[in-house]
Amino acid sequence: MDEHFLFYVPPGQIDHARLQFTEDEAHHITKVLRKQPGDIVQATDGVGNTMDVRLIEVDKKKVAGEVIATYNTPAEPDRILAMGVIRQRERLEFAIEKAVELGVTKIVLVHSEHAGRMEIKSRRIDKTIIAAIKQSRRPWLPAWEERDSFFDVLAAYRESREVVMAHPDVEGTYEWKAEDTPMLLLVGPEGGFSPNEVEQAVASDIKIISLGQKRLRTETAVCAMLVLANLGR
Amino acid sequence: MDEHFLFYVPPGQIDHARLQFTEDEAHHITKVLRKQPGDIVQATDGVGNTMDVRLIEVDKKKVAGEVIATYNTPAEPDRILAMGVIRQRERLEFAIEKAVELGVTKIVLVHSEHAGRMEIKSRRIDKTIIAAIKQSRRPWLPAWEERDSFFDVLAAYRESREVVMAHPDVEGTYEWKAEDTPMLLLVGPEGGFSPNEVEQAVASDIKIISLGQKRLRTETAVCAMLVLANLGR
Repeated sequence: MDEHFLFYVPPGQIDHARLQFTEDEAHHITKVLRKQPGDIVQATDGVGNTMDVRLIEVDKKKVAGEVIATYNTPAEPDRILAMGVIRQRERLEFAIEKAVELGVTKIVLVHSEHAGRMEIKSRRIDKTIIAAIKQSRRPWLPAWEERDSFFDVLAAYRESREVVMAHPDVEGTYEWKAEDTPMLLLVGPEGGFSPNEVEQAVASDIKIISLGQKRLRTETAVCAMLVLANLGR
Repeated sequence: MDEHFLFYVPPGQIDHARLQFTEDEAHHITKVLRKQPGDIVQATDGVGNTMDVRLIEVDKKKVAGEVIATYNTPAEPDRILAMGVIRQRERLEFAIEKAVELGVTKIVLVHSEHAGRMEIKSRRIDKTIIAAIKQSRRPWLPAWEERDSFFDVLAAYRESREVVMAHPDVEGTYEWKAEDTPMLLLVGPEGGFSPNEVEQAVASDIKIISLGQKRLRTETAVCAMLVLANLGR
């Protein structure tokens, strides 16, 4: 059995013990890995199930198989990351890839005051997230969405979550909460949070933490926040 | 004064209060930022000094200036990162960039058992490191080198350092030492450490820690180790 990748199959393409891979996955299975009928691969539905799948039909456009075993993985700790959008596409995709590897459960791309509005290519974001769960063998597919401001983010997700904002030059220490605490992590765009955004955070009693004395790029701060939230205790 | 970038000037190009920028920096100053004589920029010699520099001569091949103020930054905690080389150039450069932002003091690229030998383009590594200190405004330039194996790394750097290796599926917890403890951090290549490398680490009583249940890419493990060593307490 090939355990190197965990292929992603949307739940709608699984019908009892029979499933059909998407075209992207079919391409990977046939053209890159050159699998044959009878070969066994592992796949996830993105909602916690990992399946051993015996391939039945292997065509470059259509790959189908039967599920011969299913394993369930419990839900992961709630980690919503709201980050200012990054203009450089590779850096944005890198931030998303790393967030997925490091355990994010939802990514919110924020057209914040210093980030400005920019067009997001949905299909590329989807592909980046799927590639990252495949590579890191993670059976939960994080969701993602766009929001117009950090205020929108707070209105939508603040309730019942610990909210932590990364911002340079703040004093004091912060003790990360237990791993199962639902968290909303806020990371600014290149250029950081606006004075207005910081003021509102202070006023609404959000935890503001410093990530050290060096100036970090957005994608680096994304990595640091998730490492600290998930491993830093 | 433009405080956005911290330009790098090798100590050999500084003669008392007068300095000359390298050609790469001259290009950045003239072509990208379009500075003029009289403008003031900040530069570092990479050994802890940050200088305010008034530009005197501004030509696309030669930019020179005079130092009008110098600030000294104490040495940073000793953090040697030894990582298996990554075949994909962008991922290797990304790992290096992130290590620099997150406070590495020396990077050792290891042609380890599972990494194999690969040609390293020195000039690109130099450029990546310099770009990262400029961007993160860090006045210390990390060194880098290549080594043939992790055994070489241990022989060279183990003494008087806390040695921590990231490896999946290990049990137990690890308490990171105080920030000023000299540390040698070991991260495997794609494909991880070889059984031989792990066995030797176990035998020589190196601390082996897990970075969670998900499989991390090399560059992600690099970020996680440095975040934990520098911020995770």
